[in-house]
Amino acid sequence: MADAPADGDARFGRDRTLRIKSPLPLDSGLQLSPLDIAYETYGALNANRSNAVLICHALTMDQYVASDHPVTGKPGWWLGMVGPGKPIDTDRFFVICANVLGSCMGTTGPRSINPASGRPWGMSFPVITIADMVRAEIALLDALQIERLFAAVGGSMGGMRVLELAAAHPERLGNAIVIASAARHTAQNIAFHEVGRQAIMADPNWNGGNYYDGEPPSKGLAVARMAAHITYLSEEGLTAKFGRKLQDRDAVSFGFDADFQIESYLRHQGIRFVERFDANSYLYITRAMDYFDMAASRGGRLADAFAGTTTRFCLVSFTSDWLYPTAETRSIVHALNAVGAPVSFVEIDSPHGHDAFLLDAPEMDAVIAGFLAAGRTS
Amino acid sequence: MADAPADGDARFGRDRTLRIKSPLPLDSGLQLSPLDIAYETYGALNANRSNAVLICHALTMDQYVASDHPVTGKPGWWLGMVGPGKPIDTDRFFVICANVLGSCMGTTGPRSINPASGRPWGMSFPVITIADMVRAEIALLDALQIERLFAAVGGSMGGMRVLELAAAHPERLGNAIVIASAARHTAQNIAFHEVGRQAIMADPNWNGGNYYDGEPPSKGLAVARMAAHITYLSEEGLTAKFGRKLQDRDAVSFGFDADFQIESYLRHQGIRFVERFDANSYLYITRAMDYFDMAASRGGRLADAFAGTTTRFCLVSFTSDWLYPTAETRSIVHALNAVGAPVSFVEIDSPHGHDAFLLDAPEMDAVIAGFLAAGRTS
Repeated sequence: MADAPADGDARFGRDRTLRIKSPLPLDSGLQLSPLDIAYETYGALNANRSNAVLICHALTMDQYVASDHPVTGKPGWWLGMVGPGKPIDTDRFFVICANVLGSCMGTTGPRSINPASGRPWGMSFPVITIADMVRAEIALLDALQIERLFAAVGGSMGGMRVLELAAAHPERLGNAIVIASAARHTAQNIAFHEVGRQAIMADPNWNGGNYYDGEPPSKGLAVARMAAHITYLSEEGLTAKFGRKLQDRDAVSFGFDADFQIESYLRHQGIRFVERFDANSYLYITRAMDYFDMAASRGGRLADAFAGTTTRFCLVSFTSDWLYPTAETRSIVHALNAVGAPVSFVEIDSPHGHDAFLLDAPEMDAVIAGFLAAGRTS
Repeated sequence: MADAPADGDARFGRDRTLRIKSPLPLDSGLQLSPLDIAYETYGALNANRSNAVLICHALTMDQYVASDHPVTGKPGWWLGMVGPGKPIDTDRFFVICANVLGSCMGTTGPRSINPASGRPWGMSFPVITIADMVRAEIALLDALQIERLFAAVGGSMGGMRVLELAAAHPERLGNAIVIASAARHTAQNIAFHEVGRQAIMADPNWNGGNYYDGEPPSKGLAVARMAAHITYLSEEGLTAKFGRKLQDRDAVSFGFDADFQIESYLRHQGIRFVERFDANSYLYITRAMDYFDMAASRGGRLADAFAGTTTRFCLVSFTSDWLYPTAETRSIVHALNAVGAPVSFVEIDSPHGHDAFLLDAPEMDAVIAGFLAAGRTS
């Protein structure tokens, strides 16, 4: 991929941040200002600005979909999907990926400075929703003068934003790809998030969200991540990968070290996560996901969210995903069918649970490449 | 139920504690001494001491199977199962339920005094196993002069002890009832326990296990309980009971209060739990469960654990139990079949997940009553 801005426009390229001047109206009734949006772009915008693809990242991901992460140094989180000749082909598409509202990689969130106080927002940051996140992404598209996206693509919480974008701004979206996602959070989804939030808030370093001058609540955030991580993997996947295998030993220690590989793996996941993520962002983004219920916010009937849509939809689920199981995707498909929307739906056989969408999945690649190939860029 | 000792023997009745004089040998190679075992008995031991039924409680339960709990004041945790005319009929059987080794309701555990230091064991308590717990229960039976149990009955971790008892001491067990249990902990089981342990250890009040003079790690223990509690319930059960219903409000608060009933419920579960349970006991007992693997400790073949057994077996699982799913029970049934043991197995249709065994379940009651009725007390 070329590193130069796509067409010489300084707004395009890597490590961009735009300040959105007008206040962002929020579902809570409050307004947020100022709003910075940090993002990456890949590929070139065509002359009639019709080849833009917005990638919506998941809860703890970021804009570095196909760029090295500035904190961890790791390669982009969806390199198998985005790039020249990849299913989301940067030789054909102008790809945008923005850090989500409320997060901590450059877009405004609880770690940002509240201009009224000159200090980080912390817990005075307004509670946001998935729809608010989409409003911020629309503000970015406005600033980039992209009237209509060729496509929006997202997995997990990214899929929620794609659905919300399709419902709230159908005129701006040609094709919607929603992977391993749901149109609402279930009681079990909320329950796991609540455990994570309580783990963070139980850490005395959290200090009501005021920790930016001192030690962050790393232990609490690590526990939250460990609990969530279990939900990203399937029982069968865990058994296949770890089973009861021991970590660097021949027998159990009769102690509380990480005797089992699964323990060592989870601890590692927790430790790595706190190096790159802000605990308050975790609180706010999980809250937004728990609040998400597309049907309820539109009178109780999911189909009404999509009435009259001209967007094409592609939905993908995975057999072993118990966080957002296929039944959730199927209810979206039924809603889209009810309004006569063009929709294709594939359930992919995978042992990798929810995280399957982040892993190499040739069948997913083929579905997405085929769906995008069949769409017209005008 | 009569409160008087069953046959005038002072060892029988409510709120009993026996001190076992000989040191208890442990799988770790250590010995534990002294060993107190706190227990309850119900009903009368018959003349040839052949009608004793041992009830093995689960991780966080206790000996108060059919008595009021001295801390919470709540009625016994299995009143629907144990009592006069109940499936485990105290008019017919002499029922014993002992607080498990490592726990905190009177049996020796990390909160007990280490005679060598005159202070609580804390994390100097030896790491124990399910087999060690069974050894302690056998020591109690010896002290009560009960050579052979008519039956042992247990759900969840209680079922693990019944299996271990049947395997290690087949001559002492006539009938084994194993409910919602497993012969080993899977990677996912270990993972959830590890999250709970890390939540406890992340609480600064835990202080390496030395908190008995000060504030206990209540926040960490509550988070551990919340995470575990999700695994005790099914997704369908949570949806049916809570769904996305709000708690005492008409709309979300745009804040971090318990907006949803499921949040309020989980927080309540955490708060109630820390009033009656010791955090170090939680560490030790979860560790014992994670170490449990009956096949591995017998050369890798589960059937070898039961070779030559004369015990009758009854196994019960629940369709929506994802903590110890039916497949785990089925592998035990296959092992028992392989050695020609008499075994009956019922999978009960229930939406209540793992906790189904603690709830009213007429089909379970009928299975257990029928199985016990068909056994001879000699």
